[in-house]
Formats: sequence, C-alpha cells, structure tokens
Amino acid sequence: MNYRMIGFVVGRILLTEAVLLLLPLGAAAVYRESGVPYLATMALLVLAGAALGLRRPRETALYARDGFAVVALAWILVSAFGALPFVFSGDIPGYVDAFFETVSGFTTTGATILTEVERLHRGILFWRSFTHWVGGMGVLVFVMAILPMTDGHGMHLMRAEVPGPSVGKLVSRMSDSAKILYGIYAAMTLIEIVLLLCGGMPVFDACIHAFGTAGTGGFSSRGLSVGAYQNAYFDVVIATFMLLFSINFNLYYFLLIRRFREVARSETLWAFLGIVLGAVVLITVNICPLYGSALTGARYAYFQVASIISTTGYSTADFNAWPTLSRSILVVLMFIGACAGSTGGGIKVDRVVILVKSSLRDMKKMLHPNAVATVRFEGKPLPERNIQGVHVFAAVYLMIFVVSYLLLSLEQFDLVTTFTALAACINNIGPGLEMVGPMGNFSAFSPLSKLLLSFDMLVGRLEIFPMLLLFAPSIWKRRRLVRRRPSV
Amino acid sequence: MNYRMIGFVVGRILLTEAVLLLLPLGAAAVYRESGVPYLATMALLVLAGAALGLRRPRETALYARDGFAVVALAWILVSAFGALPFVFSGDIPGYVDAFFETVSGFTTTGATILTEVERLHRGILFWRSFTHWVGGMGVLVFVMAILPMTDGHGMHLMRAEVPGPSVGKLVSRMSDSAKILYGIYAAMTLIEIVLLLCGGMPVFDACIHAFGTAGTGGFSSRGLSVGAYQNAYFDVVIATFMLLFSINFNLYYFLLIRRFREVARSETLWAFLGIVLGAVVLITVNICPLYGSALTGARYAYFQVASIISTTGYSTADFNAWPTLSRSILVVLMFIGACAGSTGGGIKVDRVVILVKSSLRDMKKMLHPNAVATVRFEGKPLPERNIQGVHVFAAVYLMIFVVSYLLLSLEQFDLVTTFTALAACINNIGPGLEMVGPMGNFSAFSPLSKLLLSFDMLVGRLEIFPMLLLFAPSIWKRRRLVRRRPSV
Repeated sequence: MNYRMIGFVVGRILLTEAVLLLLPLGAAAVYRESGVPYLATMALLVLAGAALGLRRPRETALYARDGFAVVALAWILVSAFGALPFVFSGDIPGYVDAFFETVSGFTTTGATILTEVERLHRGILFWRSFTHWVGGMGVLVFVMAILPMTDGHGMHLMRAEVPGPSVGKLVSRMSDSAKILYGIYAAMTLIEIVLLLCGGMPVFDACIHAFGTAGTGGFSSRGLSVGAYQNAYFDVVIATFMLLFSINFNLYYFLLIRRFREVARSETLWAFLGIVLGAVVLITVNICPLYGSALTGARYAYFQVASIISTTGYSTADFNAWPTLSRSILVVLMFIGACAGSTGGGIKVDRVVILVKSSLRDMKKMLHPNAVATVRFEGKPLPERNIQGVHVFAAVYLMIFVVSYLLLSLEQFDLVTTFTALAACINNIGPGLEMVGPMGNFSAFSPLSKLLLSFDMLVGRLEIFPMLLLFAPSIWKRRRLVRRRPSV
Repeated sequence: MNYRMIGFVVGRILLTEAVLLLLPLGAAAVYRESGVPYLATMALLVLAGAALGLRRPRETALYARDGFAVVALAWILVSAFGALPFVFSGDIPGYVDAFFETVSGFTTTGATILTEVERLHRGILFWRSFTHWVGGMGVLVFVMAILPMTDGHGMHLMRAEVPGPSVGKLVSRMSDSAKILYGIYAAMTLIEIVLLLCGGMPVFDACIHAFGTAGTGGFSSRGLSVGAYQNAYFDVVIATFMLLFSINFNLYYFLLIRRFREVARSETLWAFLGIVLGAVVLITVNICPLYGSALTGARYAYFQVASIISTTGYSTADFNAWPTLSRSILVVLMFIGACAGSTGGGIKVDRVVILVKSSLRDMKKMLHPNAVATVRFEGKPLPERNIQGVHVFAAVYLMIFVVSYLLLSLEQFDLVTTFTALAACINNIGPGLEMVGPMGNFSAFSPLSKLLLSFDMLVGRLEIFPMLLLFAPSIWKRRRLVRRRPSV
C-alpha cells in the first residue's frame, strides 16, 4: 500500500470539498443567512486536507487495492465532513442524522430523515442538493478533472468509482476523460435548469431539482417532491432528464464526435429503453382506473418509472397507493437500476443483460455440450472473466442484502418497509414503500440502522468492493515495493 | 432425441404409478370407502403406460437432453394423472385445484388449496401424503430402483432429478445406487412411524406425518398441522426427522459402510447445522416474550426452523404472528433450503457455501491479482465449471423468481403474500406469510396463478433446467444418430 499517496489524494479531495462549500456559502449570502456553518466546515476541511495532502509524495504509483482504499476513504471522509454544515446550522442537530443525510446526498440516494424540508435554511438546502451533483459523476473523477495528479495511475481510481462492470477511457489521458465527462454533465445540467426556468420554476428550485436529476439523487426543496408543482411540463422535463442522466455518458461523447452508429448499436441502451417502455405501458394500464384518464395515468407512470429506474427517487404520485402489480414492477426496477457509466445506481442494466445472455448460453451448453458459444456484448465477444465478475457481483450483492436485511429487521417495522428501505438505500434510490414510501421518510430508524443504511448506500454507490475490501485485513498489510506489480 | 426411449421410460413410470395407487386403494378399503377413484385412475394409467412403454426400443441410449426431457415429462404426466383420484372422489372437484395439490404433493411442497383437510376421504388423504414420499426421493430414481432398464444410461436421469449441484454415484451401478438410497429412505421412514406410534399417535396419522416428513413435504391430516396434537414429544420427533431428511443421503450410506471420517468432514453438514443452530437461538431469544418461557420458545423455534429450512412446511405455531426478525430469518431460510442429495428443496446449502467461498476467493483476487486461488469444497478443489454452474443456477433462479413474481402480482394480493407464496412454492416449502401463512392456504389464487405456481413448484423440485429446457426449441429437433455424441 502506498499510504503517502493515499493520504495525498484524500487530502486533495478534502481541500476540493472546502472549495465546493463556497457555493452554498454564496446561496446563504443571497438569502441573508449566516455563513458560519459553511466557513467553520471549510476551516476544518482545509486543516485536515492540508495535513494530509500538502506535500506530493515521490512515489505516486497507485495499484488496484490502493484505488479501492482511496475511493472508500474519500467517500467516507467527504460525507463525514459534509455533514457538519447540517449540524452547525442546527437544521439537523444529531450528527448521525446529518451523516445519513449527507451520505444519502453524495451517494445520490435521496433518502431523507427530514420530516419538513421547507423549514431548512436555503444554503443548507442548496448544499444538500449540490452533494447529489458532485456525487453523481464522482468525487474522485471531479478531482481528477481539475487536478491531474496521479500521472496515469488514475485508471484504478476511476474504475473503483465509476459505476458499471467495465470502464472505458474516452481519450488516452484519464484527466482529459474526466474533463469531458464533467463537461457533458455540466452542460446537460445547465440545459435542464434553463428548461425548468422557461416553465416558470423559481431559480433556486430549478437549481435544486436539476442537481437532484443530474446526480439521479432525488432531494427536493419541497416536501411533496416534484408533485408539489402539479405541473405537467415540469413532470415531463424532469422525467426525461432523469432518463437522460441514467444512460452511459460515453454515448453522449460518441454523439459529440459524430459516431452515431456506436450509439444506435448500444445493446444496453435498447435494453434500457425497452424496460422503460414496457414498465410505463404496464403501469399505465394498471393505474388508469385510479386516475380516470389514460393520459394522466401515462404521465404519472412515465414520471415514476423514470424516477425509479434512474434511481433518482422524485415522485409526483404516491405510488405506495398503487395496485400490487405496479408496485411490484417498481420494486423490480429498483434492483435493475440505470446503465453503467451514468450517474444512476442499482445493479445496472448492463449487468442484467450480461446475466441473461450468459445464462442463456450456459443453458444452451447443457443441451449441446460440445457447442462452442461465446457471449457477445455491445458487439464484441465478452471475456469469461468479465462474465464471472458480473456473477460474483450479483452473488456478493445478494449476500450483503440478506445480512443487512436481517440486521434491519431488528427494527420491528413491517416486512415491506424493511425490504424496500434497504432496497431504496443499497440501490441509491431514496423512497421505498409503506413507511418509507414517497410520502414517508427514514426518521423512525434507530441511529444504528441509519449507520447500517449509510454503509449500504456507500456499498451501492461504489459497487460493493471498495467498501468491503476496506475491511479485508490483507489490504492494510505493508508489502515491500519489490513484490508489488501493477495489476491489469 | 431418442423419442422411443423417452416414451418407453415415461410409459414405465406411468405403469409404476398405477401400482403405487394400490396403497391408497388399500387405505380406502380399510376405511370402507369407495375404491372407484383409484381403480379408474389405475385403468387410465395402465392404458397410457402400456401404449408408451410396452415395447423396449432397440436403441436405449439416453443423453443429457433426453434426460432432461424424460424427467420433465414424467413429472408433469405423473402429476396430471395423480390428480384424477382427487377429482373422481369429489374431494377436489376442480381439475386445476387437484393438479395444483398433486404437483404440490409430488414436488414435496405441501402448499394446499384445501380449507378443511379433515373432510377428505381417508384414502385420498393417504394418497395426498404418499405423493410426498414418492416425490421426495424421486419418481425416476424409484423406477430405476425397481426396473433397471437403461443399461448404464441412468446417470443423466438421476442427474436431472436428484437435487444438488453434483450427483455422486454411491456404487458403480446406477440401479444399485437407487436401491441403496430407497432402502435408507424407507428404513428411516419406518423408524419415524414407530417412534410416533410409541408416543401414541394413531397409525393412520403416523403414516401421514412420516410420509410428509420423509419427503420434506408437509401435508398433514389435520387442519392445524402438527400443532393440532399439542404434544412436545411429537414436535421433537418430527422436527428432528425433518432435519435428518434434509441431509445428503450419501452421508447415511457412509455411516452404514463405516466411513465416519467422510461424514465428520462434510462441510455442507456443518454449515447446515450451524445455520440451524444460529436460527434457533436467534428466534428463541426473539419470541421468548410471546411464549413466556425460554423452553417453550426454543421448542417452537426448533420446530419451525427445522420445518422451514428442510422445506417441509409443518407448523406448530403461527409464525405469521412472530416479530419481524423471526419472520425475516424464516424467509431467508426458505431460500437457503436443505442439503443437496436430500429430499428437501430450496437453493441448497451446498450452493450457498460454494457461492460464498467462490465470492470470497474472487474478492481476494481483486486485491492480489496474481495470486493463484482454487476454491476447495468438501475437501477437494472445485472445478471452475462447477462454480460457474452454481452462479448460473443462482442467476436463472432469480430471473424465474422475478418473472413469476410479476405475473403473480396481477392477483392484487399484498406484497408479502405474493412474495412468500412464490417463495414457498419455488422452494417447495408450502406455507408462506400473511394470507398463505401456516393457518392460511392457496385457495384464493386464480386458476392461472395456480398453474403458474405449479410450474414454479416443478421448477424448484427439478432444479430449474429440465423444466426450462423443455421449452427450448432445439431440444425437440431431430438429429441424425451419427451426429450424437455422449455428453459428460
């Protein structure tokens, strides 16, 4: 382990967080609120960041396990410090609650312990939603975009942070890839803000909801979420952008450089759109009687499906009151999630496609044992180790889910609340069903459960392994440099 | 495909079923009930069986895909004919209901559509429970034990029917292995009957409950299941035998031939006992307040845990009314299930152990990419293709579960009923929670859902692939003999 370099990178990330706090500070200034909560946090961040990250170590190489360690530590520390403004401002007095809310923000989950959102300071509301925006594309990717410091070793960081079974660099330099991604991300966010303003949404609300959409997070400035506006235009704009932000960002880059064929051929994209379409149609038919008209039904179905599969978690209807089929479809969508390489969570459409295709292949092999069959994915033969990786991901995901579920059921809430609260956190969605439905919140959980759910949110956002491997004893063993070899 | 041989084997199985019907016919005679329902069914079975299985084809070779087809067809036909006595006797007038009940019997699920069991004819009750006994060890294994007809090609049949990730022959001849297994099975059933009689249970009830325990089925002659007796001795005997019948039968053979070390070293056995012990302790602590004393709590916890993990489904307490943690533990046990090579259902402890071990291995490889690591299972290195097989099983199992769950949620029952009804059927347990809890039944489901659940019960009992592959178009393609090669 390259401890110095890990410390250096984490330190830089904390310094970056201090800079990011200038934005909510500005928002507080505009609304004439006290800036102390932000300034105090910034001071602490600068202190900690400078202590760790002031001097660049001579040896800057980072290997796979260093990458995991950096990412896991960075996300935990960024959340730990990010929780302070909530505490300092008095808006969320309990530190565990504030930590849960911040983890929920950075992991773009959007699960809240707040009962009345409208009561918060404007600066705090801004910070709360801005964490979504930063967490969506990735804290480290952001740092890489602005501070290229790892001399070509950033691949391990990016691999550990960007969702999906495999990471492709867009261009040869990692930091350039990060810049392109953040450029697309910022531009799309801006377009959404403009579109919301055109519809008459106030500037502050437009920013909040664009941040929440872009990161596929789901924090709102309104207790009733997007439903508060009762505005079909907002519904359509936000739902469409939720879907746009849950598509692999590489595809947008391909659009920009006019490689349209790559986009049109994307298996994942078509699978994703197919699932969305199927779910919207089924739910529309199923909820029509509730809303009287097919159009209203379709509007609510479209928004809720986009919100859940993108793992955003905004709502315009209390889907908790929908018929069993619709609720069941939403629960299934919770697990499927968005596409890899997007800001969304869940198991990811790519993994689902690979699981289905490789399972079909293996069943074929049972009938025709001598047939040679490779699995093709996105037009290329998929190496067996990638298939195996996806299967292991699914297995470990299930195990963490089962253990967390048993621990969470100590709370004595009903089974649906327990199950969907966990599903909503580990898949970074936000609302579940029953007590944690779109009109509910997570305030009733005990502090221990909140920490467990925070862990699960991080497990979901970082795709399990960085968080789990943090607890592996062998990751912390010192090894002599000569025995280290770069991993592929 | 060797159609003639498939027909021949299936025909022989139907003839065997006709013979098996002599037992309920005898029971009906003892209780002076009409024998017509059984005789009529036997006549039909003899007709169909003779038409298919009278002449032994010259070519008797059966390959992997023939094995799948035979097993799937045999189980469907045996259930289809086995349902007739229920209809003919008037005890279950609707054919779909009778089919559901018979599939539930043969697959050792024990889910019932009956609201008042005590009303049935004694002969019918006997037949209903006897299907558990036959289905537990396997219809084909039974036929192989009494009619060795496939000249060494029985391995594919056995592999397709006996639960678990791999099948080991006990002795070199398949039919001898089948005889040994059925011998152990019959002896253990007899011991249980004797023990129940010693406790004062009537002969008829003792047979019924021993059949239900041996097959890990769960049909009872009493509406309140084993709880009707309110007898701690019966509870302990039945619970212990449920556990005994969910252990790999090979271990009993090893005990018989005095290879004690093989038994003591069995990883699966220890994992199974560990899970049982852990679950009993946790649930006892959790339900103590409900029952006043730790001893009563432990008695109920032991019985219910044994019943669920063995996938039997008998109950002595309404666990539907237990606290969330206990109910959650039971739901998790539903999926884990019994050991491979037993009469129990579920995913199987062996597969869970392999999933956990291979996932840990793969996570280790992430940290140390150049480390060579094989997974050891039951003292031997496990081939990668077996690990892959388990992962594929888990993935396909999940997919079938999700699709069935969505179809079943059209029923508009609550989510817990829908989820646990499916879990109880696909894992061959019987009761679930809420509406299908130990005091409930499956009568409220529509005929289509009953057929779906019947399919899922067969999928669970035959471990997915025989049932799924029956729908693969390529399994029914004629191929020239010269292109066939035996599969390994």
